[in-house]
Amino acid sequence: MVEWESVLHDAAERVQEVRDKLVSAREGTERIGEGAGGDITMRVDQEAEQEIIAVLKQKGDVRIVAEEQGETGPKDARWTVIVDPIDGSSNFERGIPFYCTSIAVLEGRTLDDTKHGLVRNLVNGDTYYAQAGSYATKNGAEIKTSTLQNLREATVGIDISRTTLPVVKSLNVLIASIKRQMHFGANALETCFLAEGRLDGFLDIRGRIRIMDMAAGQLIAKQAGAVFSDERGGPLRPAISVKERFSVVGGGNSTLHAHILAKLKG
Amino acid sequence: MVEWESVLHDAAERVQEVRDKLVSAREGTERIGEGAGGDITMRVDQEAEQEIIAVLKQKGDVRIVAEEQGETGPKDARWTVIVDPIDGSSNFERGIPFYCTSIAVLEGRTLDDTKHGLVRNLVNGDTYYAQAGSYATKNGAEIKTSTLQNLREATVGIDISRTTLPVVKSLNVLIASIKRQMHFGANALETCFLAEGRLDGFLDIRGRIRIMDMAAGQLIAKQAGAVFSDERGGPLRPAISVKERFSVVGGGNSTLHAHILAKLKG
Repeated sequence: MVEWESVLHDAAERVQEVRDKLVSAREGTERIGEGAGGDITMRVDQEAEQEIIAVLKQKGDVRIVAEEQGETGPKDARWTVIVDPIDGSSNFERGIPFYCTSIAVLEGRTLDDTKHGLVRNLVNGDTYYAQAGSYATKNGAEIKTSTLQNLREATVGIDISRTTLPVVKSLNVLIASIKRQMHFGANALETCFLAEGRLDGFLDIRGRIRIMDMAAGQLIAKQAGAVFSDERGGPLRPAISVKERFSVVGGGNSTLHAHILAKLKG
Repeated sequence: MVEWESVLHDAAERVQEVRDKLVSAREGTERIGEGAGGDITMRVDQEAEQEIIAVLKQKGDVRIVAEEQGETGPKDARWTVIVDPIDGSSNFERGIPFYCTSIAVLEGRTLDDTKHGLVRNLVNGDTYYAQAGSYATKNGAEIKTSTLQNLREATVGIDISRTTLPVVKSLNVLIASIKRQMHFGANALETCFLAEGRLDGFLDIRGRIRIMDMAAGQLIAKQAGAVFSDERGGPLRPAISVKERFSVVGGGNSTLHAHILAKLKG
């Protein structure tokens, strides 16, 4: 039996060391190429992912789906580990202090098979972890989502970057209905803000989010009480592939989730 | 001659101590009433403002325009000091690590008479300061705005919280034209992100921004190279009053500022 919780903490700790070293040396933002996921690869992305993979490779029967190197390991492996070494690379590049590492472990071939998820805020070290069927934690203490029941008072993370006019327009009614629209630029970490009740909702309906951004965060938020769907209210069923893109609508509870969805339809 | 730079640093340091004490004690978010600016007053707002005012009161001929207590001191004073003890109070309340203190000194009766501005990020202590006609600094080192010339690659802070459907719609074309829309929930600090080139633009066209949010930040950003106007391209001419509300459009340089304005018109 692999002790996934300690494996994920070890891997995240090694990413933290890479990040700290590169920030101190004012390095890390050198552009190296393009990752398997299609984004620009910086030195920090590459070195962080190498550290995570070095830890995972010791664990045997593992398939890895990772932002930079793509998919490796046996297709019939018992475990699939989904890695985004640095979510929020653009923030890292510009010095905006909001980015994280995200690692999820699946036992099976769907997002619902996610068994362990860890997201670490690389700016301040806050570490979110959940195990399926258990509870969600931040730095070891249990966290819960918001119990807010109305949109009028809601603070919602909404990603409307790099998108089209129709997508922007489809969010007008929702944005005019809530108290605060926020976007920090690292969706895995923003999903953890939903998990701990700092945000009442989180959505990205651009059809651009990737499993590397969401696998760990959605487990953590669900275990803390969040409800997720696609933009039409259907279940999240992305393929477990580095190329997959989908949309996600999350609420801190089922009432708020339904209110958010209703404003997307109107 | 008042040494305003050291006075502002002293005041901000005392606010930092108040914030640190209240965060350690898990206090600070107790709601006390409503400030002169119309927002809910929490304990942290009140205690922070008292510290700033205690420092300013030693300086003699000063009129104070402050978020919580409103306007005090002689109307014909040489200096007007504009104070927002905690910009981003809602973030403070929810544990979102993005809020600041903002203090500006005017010699005259208009925003263009702002002579000194200081914004301190109360989460990590980063301190932005500028003197009119000089340069802008962060932690003592000179900062400059972005030199980006096109919207397609631009990261823009846009506040679309607590607003109406027409305002949201008026931003659709701009949002669909840029690379990233962000909003962190403390506009004084977001304006400093513009000043140091972390953001390429910053705007709030809701007609809700207050001089307490903007006086220090706009000086710091202008001294670093930013260009500001109202939502139609006219000069910023808010009344120096705690009740005043206006709109602001900022770009890291004149080209980007013009591109942003053009997308608001069509």
